[in-house]
Amino acid sequence: MILYDSLGPNPATVRLFIAETQHSFGIKVHPVDIMSLENRQEDYVNTVNSRGEVPALRLANGHIITEITAICEYLDEVSEKEGSLIGTTAEERAETRMWVRRVFLEICNPMTESLRNTEEFNAFYQGHRKLIEGISEPLKELALKGMERLNGELEGKTFIAGSRITLADILLFAFMGTLNQVIPWVLDTGFNNINKWYKSMEQRESAKYLNTAYLKDQIL
Amino acid sequence: MILYDSLGPNPATVRLFIAETQHSFGIKVHPVDIMSLENRQEDYVNTVNSRGEVPALRLANGHIITEITAICEYLDEVSEKEGSLIGTTAEERAETRMWVRRVFLEICNPMTESLRNTEEFNAFYQGHRKLIEGISEPLKELALKGMERLNGELEGKTFIAGSRITLADILLFAFMGTLNQVIPWVLDTGFNNINKWYKSMEQRESAKYLNTAYLKDQIL
Repeated sequence: MILYDSLGPNPATVRLFIAETQHSFGIKVHPVDIMSLENRQEDYVNTVNSRGEVPALRLANGHIITEITAICEYLDEVSEKEGSLIGTTAEERAETRMWVRRVFLEICNPMTESLRNTEEFNAFYQGHRKLIEGISEPLKELALKGMERLNGELEGKTFIAGSRITLADILLFAFMGTLNQVIPWVLDTGFNNINKWYKSMEQRESAKYLNTAYLKDQIL
Repeated sequence: MILYDSLGPNPATVRLFIAETQHSFGIKVHPVDIMSLENRQEDYVNTVNSRGEVPALRLANGHIITEITAICEYLDEVSEKEGSLIGTTAEERAETRMWVRRVFLEICNPMTESLRNTEEFNAFYQGHRKLIEGISEPLKELALKGMERLNGELEGKTFIAGSRITLADILLFAFMGTLNQVIPWVLDTGFNNINKWYKSMEQRESAKYLNTAYLKDQIL
């Protein structure tokens, strides 16, 4: 398999997920230079992802899977790891998917869209993402409201879904751990349970995969 | 199991999914009157869904699962149906999840948020959803752009993921089939492949479940 990888929160989610499975998939990493918009050029759009987005996973048969949750669930299914970052029963998997969707829609998505819809950052996309004016600040408020809610829900829990680490933790950590480089407020909310959880995620071996450099020339 | 059900696109997705599985789950339907904001009242928020949203599924052990994709995947796993609306191989399931996420993020979500952020409709929530001014029209444009892309991708295909019906079809049909009652433009885009696909979905037995009345006093 080939993983098309780059800077940014979405590829980081998949890298961290792979690291947490501790499984050898035989995945070759193909770096994509999003800073020069390589992902928006004909070659990538026509042969990898028609949406010009990263990451993407090319399966052994040549087919491409995009969308981070689909990629992570696929890797979970084909790994032979004991345990699972999705869950080992139908109920555990349902709880994971519930938390993944909550965390994404209530925090990760408004956080990312808040950034993408600042005039300054939007220029980076050179017209590939339309700027919606006046939405950045309200979306930041929405993300903070989502974090406040999660902060309460983390009370007495080690991980977002309870005592087991899941894709929900990896997703939120990947977004906060990469986006803070451009919007530092994501680590500066003062939400004590989120801070404690973030620090524990930061101490895991997988955290180094926030940095794309760790993957250079590696077979995962 | 108990399904907390109401008007709206999200509950419709789960109802249609259940109908398409053609499996008897023994689910009791509990109608929630969102028109009087029953879902925002203490009883529902404290005992069913802290987010005050519908649908929710109470499992046999009393635990609650929310979020439509988590509920549908759970029901798919516990049904004994041959075949599956998610997929029968890891690759099929990955393709379904990829299309579900694309359809939701590129069409369903901006379509719904466009409606929720009109002054007129937002009043309905009585403060439970903050109005973001000026984004309704840009979000409508975004949803239309998503539909235009999907229209191209549907060329030569029967369903969104190809030749098999999946949760992606059910999701988009449930959103278009309910939201058109308040924003008729969703059925009036002129996208020929989407129109053809919509008509074929409308002719399925499951389509009657767009209407909550079909569930009254039923065990699913």
